[in-house]
Amino acid sequence: MAFERLKQQIRTEGKIFPGNILKVDSFLNHQIDPVLCGAMADEFARLYASERITKVLTVEASGIVIACEVARRLGVKALFAKKADHKNVAAGRYEAPVRSYTTGKSCTISVSSEYLSSSDRVLIVDDFLAMGEAAHALAEIARQAGAEIAGFGFAIEKGFQPGGELLRSAGYRVESLAIVDRMTDEGGIFFRD
Amino acid sequence: MAFERLKQQIRTEGKIFPGNILKVDSFLNHQIDPVLCGAMADEFARLYASERITKVLTVEASGIVIACEVARRLGVKALFAKKADHKNVAAGRYEAPVRSYTTGKSCTISVSSEYLSSSDRVLIVDDFLAMGEAAHALAEIARQAGAEIAGFGFAIEKGFQPGGELLRSAGYRVESLAIVDRMTDEGGIFFRD
Repeated sequence: MAFERLKQQIRTEGKIFPGNILKVDSFLNHQIDPVLCGAMADEFARLYASERITKVLTVEASGIVIACEVARRLGVKALFAKKADHKNVAAGRYEAPVRSYTTGKSCTISVSSEYLSSSDRVLIVDDFLAMGEAAHALAEIARQAGAEIAGFGFAIEKGFQPGGELLRSAGYRVESLAIVDRMTDEGGIFFRD
Repeated sequence: MAFERLKQQIRTEGKIFPGNILKVDSFLNHQIDPVLCGAMADEFARLYASERITKVLTVEASGIVIACEVARRLGVKALFAKKADHKNVAAGRYEAPVRSYTTGKSCTISVSSEYLSSSDRVLIVDDFLAMGEAAHALAEIARQAGAEIAGFGFAIEKGFQPGGELLRSAGYRVESLAIVDRMTDEGGIFFRD
């Protein structure tokens, strides 16, 4: 799916680091361009408009803005899984382990059972899809809650890593606004058509 | 300053835990109500409209949505300080230590020097102001960058903790949408007029 503005911003501002790391800190993961985030949310809301979404689920931190923007457009609330144990989260939660490809660290993400149930139909969104570990953890949390998963939405998918293929072959609808198929050490970034 | 809708939502959905912890996970810190966040951002943008803000600074995670919403309305970008060392943050950063009152943990927050400079005039926003440690760390980061601080904006200030008084007595403009002056073990929440 074409989303030329995002691709253009990745081309001009994205930085490639060893280990297939694509850094988009100028507009998504550190500094945030609210206009671009709004445009991305418009697109996710359009794609999932007829899916009767009741909640938009993500994980802290970078996915929160997109999730909230999409939730506003769909007339529902956003919910972000927390990465650590906070002493002010009450008992009664869904948990799943996740390993971050970017930081190399493992952690548990959790969602309070107060805010997700079997009556929910969930759209899972995040900034990046690479190995798919965060996405699978969020799907596992939805499964524990008995919620239906309507699909996934990612700003940037690394098409050369297996996350997208794993989700699609499991039968999920996956919408990625920009799919990067190849990056070169010289800074070249090639998108799937 | 009155912001009745937020106060009403705190009254009806806020939960009080031992240690003066006020949990608003149903609309701000876990589940997010995008309509309320938009209304809060409207108010911050109105309050700081004439302040020539060039960047809205916050710290992950819950402050990000408000920061991004305010940034959109002011026509600038948001920037969130990161809480841990990420291997994809390049060298060249401003850092400050911060201890979370809620989790009891200490960490370092950092901002890349690419995105904050002496030409910036910064609005610092966050979800909560209690002891003021995160706010002071963000102010320290702005100071390191040589940026001007136009002021602070908080959704909820705990007026019985010293953060607000410390910032105001240091000469900063502080706008809190709801100031909680007292909480009781029975669940009573009393706001400053």
